[in-house]
Amino acid sequence: MTNHIITDKMDSVTGLDFSIARLGEPALPSPLRHAKFTEDDRRVAYFSDTRVLTELAAAGKAVPSFEAAGPRATLFHDPAWTRAAIVTCGGLCPGLNNVIKTIVNTLYFQYGVDNVFGIKYGYRGLIPAFKLEPVHLNPDTVDTIHDDGGSMLGSSRGNQDVEEMVRTLDRLRINVLFCIGGDGTLRGATAIAQAARAKNLPISVVGVPKTIDNDIDFTDRTFGFETAVHATGPIITCAHMESKGVYNGISLVRVMGRDSGFIAANASLANPVVNYCLVPEVPFELEGPDGFLASLARRLERSHHAVIVVAEGAGQHLIAEAANTVKDASGNVLHKDIGLFLKERIAEYLKQQKIEHAIRYFDPSYLVRGVPAEGTDAVFCLHLAENAVHAAMSGRTDMVVGHWHGRFTHVPISLATARRRTIDTTGQLWQSVLGATVKDYLKLES
Amino acid sequence: MTNHIITDKMDSVTGLDFSIARLGEPALPSPLRHAKFTEDDRRVAYFSDTRVLTELAAAGKAVPSFEAAGPRATLFHDPAWTRAAIVTCGGLCPGLNNVIKTIVNTLYFQYGVDNVFGIKYGYRGLIPAFKLEPVHLNPDTVDTIHDDGGSMLGSSRGNQDVEEMVRTLDRLRINVLFCIGGDGTLRGATAIAQAARAKNLPISVVGVPKTIDNDIDFTDRTFGFETAVHATGPIITCAHMESKGVYNGISLVRVMGRDSGFIAANASLANPVVNYCLVPEVPFELEGPDGFLASLARRLERSHHAVIVVAEGAGQHLIAEAANTVKDASGNVLHKDIGLFLKERIAEYLKQQKIEHAIRYFDPSYLVRGVPAEGTDAVFCLHLAENAVHAAMSGRTDMVVGHWHGRFTHVPISLATARRRTIDTTGQLWQSVLGATVKDYLKLES
Amino acid sequence: MTNHIITDKMDSVTGLDFSIARLGEPALPSPLRHAKFTEDDRRVAYFSDTRVLTELAAAGKAVPSFEAAGPRATLFHDPAWTRAAIVTCGGLCPGLNNVIKTIVNTLYFQYGVDNVFGIKYGYRGLIPAFKLEPVHLNPDTVDTIHDDGGSMLGSSRGNQDVEEMVRTLDRLRINVLFCIGGDGTLRGATAIAQAARAKNLPISVVGVPKTIDNDIDFTDRTFGFETAVHATGPIITCAHMESKGVYNGISLVRVMGRDSGFIAANASLANPVVNYCLVPEVPFELEGPDGFLASLARRLERSHHAVIVVAEGAGQHLIAEAANTVKDASGNVLHKDIGLFLKERIAEYLKQQKIEHAIRYFDPSYLVRGVPAEGTDAVFCLHLAENAVHAAMSGRTDMVVGHWHGRFTHVPISLATARRRTIDTTGQLWQSVLGATVKDYLKLES
Amino acid sequence: MTNHIITDKMDSVTGLDFSIARLGEPALPSPLRHAKFTEDDRRVAYFSDTRVLTELAAAGKAVPSFEAAGPRATLFHDPAWTRAAIVTCGGLCPGLNNVIKTIVNTLYFQYGVDNVFGIKYGYRGLIPAFKLEPVHLNPDTVDTIHDDGGSMLGSSRGNQDVEEMVRTLDRLRINVLFCIGGDGTLRGATAIAQAARAKNLPISVVGVPKTIDNDIDFTDRTFGFETAVHATGPIITCAHMESKGVYNGISLVRVMGRDSGFIAANASLANPVVNYCLVPEVPFELEGPDGFLASLARRLERSHHAVIVVAEGAGQHLIAEAANTVKDASGNVLHKDIGLFLKERIAEYLKQQKIEHAIRYFDPSYLVRGVPAEGTDAVFCLHLAENAVHAAMSGRTDMVVGHWHGRFTHVPISLATARRRTIDTTGQLWQSVLGATVKDYLKLES
Repeated sequence: MTNHIITDKMDSVTGLDFSIARLGEPALPSPLRHAKFTEDDRRVAYFSDTRVLTELAAAGKAVPSFEAAGPRATLFHDPAWTRAAIVTCGGLCPGLNNVIKTIVNTLYFQYGVDNVFGIKYGYRGLIPAFKLEPVHLNPDTVDTIHDDGGSMLGSSRGNQDVEEMVRTLDRLRINVLFCIGGDGTLRGATAIAQAARAKNLPISVVGVPKTIDNDIDFTDRTFGFETAVHATGPIITCAHMESKGVYNGISLVRVMGRDSGFIAANASLANPVVNYCLVPEVPFELEGPDGFLASLARRLERSHHAVIVVAEGAGQHLIAEAANTVKDASGNVLHKDIGLFLKERIAEYLKQQKIEHAIRYFDPSYLVRGVPAEGTDAVFCLHLAENAVHAAMSGRTDMVVGHWHGRFTHVPISLATARRRTIDTTGQLWQSVLGATVKDYLKLES
Repeated sequence: MTNHIITDKMDSVTGLDFSIARLGEPALPSPLRHAKFTEDDRRVAYFSDTRVLTELAAAGKAVPSFEAAGPRATLFHDPAWTRAAIVTCGGLCPGLNNVIKTIVNTLYFQYGVDNVFGIKYGYRGLIPAFKLEPVHLNPDTVDTIHDDGGSMLGSSRGNQDVEEMVRTLDRLRINVLFCIGGDGTLRGATAIAQAARAKNLPISVVGVPKTIDNDIDFTDRTFGFETAVHATGPIITCAHMESKGVYNGISLVRVMGRDSGFIAANASLANPVVNYCLVPEVPFELEGPDGFLASLARRLERSHHAVIVVAEGAGQHLIAEAANTVKDASGNVLHKDIGLFLKERIAEYLKQQKIEHAIRYFDPSYLVRGVPAEGTDAVFCLHLAENAVHAAMSGRTDMVVGHWHGRFTHVPISLATARRRTIDTTGQLWQSVLGATVKDYLKLES
Repeated sequence: MTNHIITDKMDSVTGLDFSIARLGEPALPSPLRHAKFTEDDRRVAYFSDTRVLTELAAAGKAVPSFEAAGPRATLFHDPAWTRAAIVTCGGLCPGLNNVIKTIVNTLYFQYGVDNVFGIKYGYRGLIPAFKLEPVHLNPDTVDTIHDDGGSMLGSSRGNQDVEEMVRTLDRLRINVLFCIGGDGTLRGATAIAQAARAKNLPISVVGVPKTIDNDIDFTDRTFGFETAVHATGPIITCAHMESKGVYNGISLVRVMGRDSGFIAANASLANPVVNYCLVPEVPFELEGPDGFLASLARRLERSHHAVIVVAEGAGQHLIAEAANTVKDASGNVLHKDIGLFLKERIAEYLKQQKIEHAIRYFDPSYLVRGVPAEGTDAVFCLHLAENAVHAAMSGRTDMVVGHWHGRFTHVPISLATARRRTIDTTGQLWQSVLGATVKDYLKLES
Repeated sequence: MTNHIITDKMDSVTGLDFSIARLGEPALPSPLRHAKFTEDDRRVAYFSDTRVLTELAAAGKAVPSFEAAGPRATLFHDPAWTRAAIVTCGGLCPGLNNVIKTIVNTLYFQYGVDNVFGIKYGYRGLIPAFKLEPVHLNPDTVDTIHDDGGSMLGSSRGNQDVEEMVRTLDRLRINVLFCIGGDGTLRGATAIAQAARAKNLPISVVGVPKTIDNDIDFTDRTFGFETAVHATGPIITCAHMESKGVYNGISLVRVMGRDSGFIAANASLANPVVNYCLVPEVPFELEGPDGFLASLARRLERSHHAVIVVAEGAGQHLIAEAANTVKDASGNVLHKDIGLFLKERIAEYLKQQKIEHAIRYFDPSYLVRGVPAEGTDAVFCLHLAENAVHAAMSGRTDMVVGHWHGRFTHVPISLATARRRTIDTTGQLWQSVLGATVKDYLKLES
C-alpha cells in the first residue's frame, strides 16, 4: 500500500541531508483551483553568498538547497478519505491558534477534508489512559480562536510512548498528523513517522516548528517571535520607569532564551533604554574590577539607574560555580535561576560596597508568550500552516515547514533539530547591542 | 507675620473634624481671569442618604461636610513672591507626572508663579546630606512628562527628620509645598506643616493623596486607580490562557492591595475569567473540606483550569499561623508573601491529593503601577492638581484634595489618614465578585 | 392582575418628579442569598451643597432625592414565570455587550430566570414584518461577548409602532424588558410601558441609558464614556504627529458630541497636545481679527502646527449662516458637517492669506465607539446591569438606572429624557480646557 | 580631490545594473572597534532558485548580485572632517525617527562624527528662501524621539531645485547626506549625487527607502510596513463590529497602497474578518451579475454584514470610466477617491435593489502611518540606518540600503526606483487572500 520513499543523499558540500521523505508517489489530481502549483524540483539555495556559489559552480557541484514549499499538482492522500489530527506541545507561543485555524480551514475549504481532530494537551492526548477525547475541529469551532493567545487544544511537555501513540492514530484512522512544537516535540514527530513507516501505516507527519526563542536552525524565522519581541516593549518601558523612580534603581528583566539570546537582543534594541543585555552566547564574569558587578556600580555612580535584560540561559557557568559555594545569610543555597541569582548577587555586592540601591525584578515570560499573534506575524503563521497542509497532502512526512531566503521550504526534522541557531556575536545584531549598551565588562577583541 | 487659623470644631454627629487649617486671612486679589471663584462657605455634604439628612434636620443639626475645592477670589500667598516645591514619595502610581505637570502649569500660567522646584527622590531631597539638588521646573521641562509612567522627580519611601526638612524649605524660601504620596507621606506633610507653624513660617503644605489601592478614606476616588485596573486586563487574559494551556493549569495573579482589595475586586469583575478573588477584607481558610484548597481541587475536577487573583494583603492570618509551623521539604520556612505562600501550599496540597497540575505565578505590580495615566484618569489628575494649587495659594495648609459626591473637596490630613477605606463586603462591589467567582469556600451568611 | 402604582408627586423644590412607577406590590421573597437588601425608603439626596440643604431644613422641606437602586427583599415578578427580553438601540457604544452579559447572568444565576431573549437589531426586532427571530440567551451564549465591541444583538435607530411592539411582547409572554439606548430609545421604552399599562400587561420596562456623549441628565456618569475618552488618546497623538510632520500642519479631529462637548473636552485634557477645543456649549466666530481663523493663523505663525478637536455639534450657527451663502469653486453648497465645513473654511482662509499649510482630517467616531469597555468602565456596566435586573424583578417600570453621589439610583425615564446634560462653562472642566488651549478667539468675561 | 568611480556594467543575465557608485578609493582606517568588517567583494545572490543557479553555472555566467552592506575596514570620509545631514521627505511612515536616531548615534558613537544636521521639512529645508535653519543633532537631542511617530525633522513632498540644494550642501560643507524617502525623494537624491559629482564635490548621498506600501523593488522589506499592518488590526476589528451592529451593515476600510496592495492583503489575512480585499493588482468589475456589487448583495443576503478593505489604488479604471458619466442625484460629479467612489456606488446600487443597508466608511491612513515603529520593525530601522552610515563613510553614493535573502545590501538608486514591487497574484500571499475572502466576482483561471 504505502511505499516510503526515503532518499538519503548527504549533501557533499555541507555534509547535511536536505532530502524530504515521502510516503509514496502522489497520483491524485489536486482539487485546488486557481493555484500555481509548485513543481517538485523547485528548490531554494542554501547559500546566497556569491563567493560560495562561484566556487561551487567552478567545482561543478550542485548548490545545497531546500525543497520549496507550496501546493502540489498531485496528491498522495485522497481528501475524501483523509482524517487529519493536530497536536500542540510544549510552552505557549503567540500564533498557535492561528496555525491550528489555518490548518483546519485549508483542509476544509481547499482540500475538502472535514475529518479534522484536535488532540488535547499535547502528545498525552494520544495516550488512551489520560482519557482525553480528541475534539472535532471545523471552520466554525476555530472561527475566532486567532483572537486568543495560548492553544485551544492545550499543550503538555514531554514525549509519550511512541508505539501507543501510533496505535491511537491507527485506531482513529488518522493519515495526516500536524505536530506544532519545539525540538523535543519534533523528535517525537520523527519517532512517530518512523514507527508508522515500520508498521507500513501511510501517515504523513508534518511539523510546524515552534520556538519563541527563534533558535531553530535552517529556518530564518519562526512564528511568534515578532509578537514576542513586541510584547516586551511596554514591560521594558515600565522597568525603565521603575529604575528611574528610586535612587540607584535597578530593574532586572528576565526574558526567554535558553540557548539563544534573540529575544533579549531584539528587545534591547527595540526599546533602547536597556543598559545591559546578557545572553547565553556571550560569557561574562561577575567579580573583579572588570566584572559585571563593578561595571554596574560604575553605571549607578554615573546615572543612578540601570535596566538589565537577561536571557534565561545567560551566565549558566556562574550559577554552576556558585552552586557549590555560595549560600545566603540563612545558609540556603542560592537560586539556580539566572534572574534570581543575579538579583541576589547584585544586592549582596552593592551592600558590601555600601552603595544604596533598589532592585526590581521582572519575569514577564507568561505575558510575552501568552498573547495572540498580531499583524505580519499572524500572516506568517497562516502561510506556515497552509504549506504544512500542502506538504502533508502530497505525502511528505518527517519534515517541518521552514522559511529561507524569502520562500517557504521543506526541512527534514533531522536537520531542523540538528543544532540550535544562536546569535553570531560578530554579526550586526550583536554589534548593534554592543553599540547600544554598556560593554566595559565584556572581553572584546579589539 | 503669619497668623495660623486653626479651627478645631469636632463635628457633633460624626465625631470627625472636617475643618481646614489656614495660614492667615487671604487679602490679595486672585490674578485668575474668567474663573468662577468658589466661595469659602461652599461645602459638600458628607451624607447623601436622605434618612440621615432628615434626622439631622429634625434635630436641628448641621450636616457634616467638606469644604469645597476651587479657585478663591483672594489669595494668601503673593504670586510674585511665591516659591513652590513639589515632592513625590512612596511607590510609583500612574498619574504622578500628570499631577506634577499640572501643578507647574497652573502656578505658571494661571498665577504667574515661575519659581517652582522639584524635590528629588521624595523627602530625602530635602535633606542636604543626600546632596540631591532640587531641579527648577517650568512648562518646558514638564511639557511631555505626562507621556511617561513613574515620577520625573524620583521617589523614596520613609520620612526624614522634620526639623531638617523645614530648615531646607526655609533656606530655599519655599512657601508652598505640594506633597504627593500615601499615608506615611501625608503624616510627614502634617509634621512639616506643624513644625513650620511652630517656627511661624508661612508655608502652605498641600497634599495630593496617592494610593494605587484606592484605600484613602474620605475621598471616593484616588488618581491612578482607574489606569491600574485597566492595566490588569491583558495580564489576567494571559493568566487565563496559561491556565487553559495545560491540564489542570492554575494561574495565580498577585495584585496590589495591602489592606483593601479594590484592585483585586475590580480586576476580577472587569475581566470575568477570574475564578477566585482573595482580598484582605474577607478571611478564608485553606484546609478542610470547606477550605480554599478543597474548593480549588473541586474546580479543577470540573473545569481543569483556574485563575486566582490575590491581593497582597489577603490571608495574612494564614501566613502568621504557618510561619511557626510549616516548613518545606528542605526544612526552610515558607515565604511570607501571600502569593508565593499560596503557590507553595497549593502545590503541596495537590501533590498530596495526587492531582496533576501546573501552577503559573504572576506578579505584575510594576507593570500596573509604572504605566502613564490615561483618559479620564489623566483628567482627574489634572483637576486634583489644579485644586491643590488653588488651595495652597489661598493659604490653606495641612490638607489634601479629595473628591466627594462628584465635587473636589478639601480634606484635613488628619481625616485622610485616620483610617483606611476597605471594601464593604455587604455592598454591590463584593456581592458582584461573589456572583462572578467560586464561593463555596467562604463562610457566607445565608 | 397587575395594579400599576403611579405616584405623581412633583417635588416642590425642583418642580421635578423623582417618583418611580411600579407594577404593583411586590409579594414574593427574593431568592438572592448573602445579599444586603436595599430598603424601599432608601434614597439619595439630589443636592449635596450644604447651603441648599440648610435652607431646606430651615424651611421644613424634604430633600429632593432619587430612589436608591439595589436588590429588594420582595419581588413582584415570579422568577419561575419570568420571561425577559433585552434590546439595544441606536449607535454603538463601548459596554453594550457587558450590559447584555450581566443582565443574562444576573437573571440566570441570581434569580434563576432562564428564559431570556435577545431582540435583534433594536426595536425593529419586535416587529414581525422584519422577520428577525429573537435569540435565546444564556450564560454560555454570552460567555465571551464582553471581549467584543459592538452589540451581539445588533442595533437600529428609530422607534417602531408601539402597539405592535407590545403585541409582540405579549405574544412572547415577556414580562421584563430591558431597553439599552439613548433618548429616543428611552422615550420608546416609556411608550411601551404606558401601552402595556393601558392593556393591563404586567411588563416591567427598565432602561440602561446609553450615550457615549455622557449627556444624559440626572446621572453623573454613563457607561462607555471612560473607554471612549481613552480611545481618543492614540488618535490625537497621531494627529499631533501629522501636524508636526509638515510645515504649518493642521490636524482637525472631529469627535462625537451632538449637544455636549464632554468627549472633546476630556480628550483635549487627557492628551494635552490639543490647541483648540470646539464644543457645542461655547459659540465662536470664524471671521474677523478676533475670530477663530485669524487666531489659527497667528498660532501657525508662532508654532507652525496646530491640533484642533471639534465636537460634531459645535458651531452649528456657522453652518446655518453659511448654508445659504457659501458655495465652493464649483458652485456646490458646502458640507453641513462641522468637521468638513471647518476644513474647507480653514483651507479657503489660509489660501486667501497666502499662508502655506496642510490640513489632515480625522473622523475617528467608529474607532471610539466600537471598542470593548475596559477596566472600571466594564465594572460600571456590570453594576448598572445588575441594578436594572433588581429593579425589574421588584416590579419597577418606566425607569432607568442612574448614578448619583456615588450610588446607583432609579431615575424615571421622564426625568432622564427631560433635558441634556451639558458642560458648565464656568466649571472646572471647561476652565481647565481654557487653561490648556488657545482662547484668544473666545469672548470671555474678564 | 574626489575621484568618482562609476562602474556601469549592465548585468548580462538580467539587464540590470547592480553596481554601486563610489566617490573614490577609501584610504582611512575605520575607527570601529570589535566589528567584523565586510569585504568589498562580499555579495548577495539575486536568485535563490537552484534551477536558475544551475543554468547560470552551466553557461559559465556569474550570478547577478547585490553588494553586501556592512562596516568597511577603510573609509573614504575622514570622520574628523565629516559633516553629515539628514533629510526626511514624503508622507509619514513608522520608523522615521528610529532611522534618524540611529544615524546620529552611529555617526557619533561609532565614527566620532559630531557635526550632524537635521534638514527641516524635507528638501525644502535645503532652499534658503524657506528660511528653515538646519538643526544640530546629537545623541541628546534624539534620545527619546523613537517613542514618537512622525519625523522630528518634519517632511514635505516634491523636489526642489537641485543646483540650489547642492549649493546649500556645499555652503554647509556637508559631505554625507542621508535621504529618507520614497521614489520621488530617491530620484531627487540621485540628482543631488550627480550634480555634486559634476561640481566635483565629494558628497556621499545615501538613501533609506521609505514606502509604507512596501512596494520598492529589489528589497524584500521596507521599514514601517510591519508596524503599519499591525496598526490596521484594531481598526478592522472596529469595522467588523460596526458591520455586525446594524442590519446589512457594510464597513468599507480604505488603506494605503497606490500601486501595490501589500497592506490591504496582509491586513485582510492578519485580521480574518475581512470579506472583500480590493487591490490595484487585481482588476474587477462593479456591474453585472458577476460584478462586485451583485456579489456584495449576495453576501448581505447570506450573512447580513460585510467588511471590505480597499487599497487606495484599486479599481482606478472604474473611476476613470465613471468620471465622464456618473453623477449623483444633485448632478455632482462623483468622488475620484476609490473609497468614496465605492461607497457611493454601493449605496446607489443597494438602493436600486431595494436592499436596506448601512455603510460605514473608514479612512485610517493617518492612524496607520503616524504611530511609532515597534519591536522587530524598530530593530530593522536601526540596522538600515547603521548600514546607511557604513556605506556613506566608505564613500558610496547614489545608493540605498536594501535587504535581500536575509542580508542587508547596497542597491543603486536607479535600480530601486526602476519599477514598483507588486503582489504576485499567483503567489501564496494573494492565493491566501482568495482563500479567506469572497471571490465570486473575480475572473479566476480555473
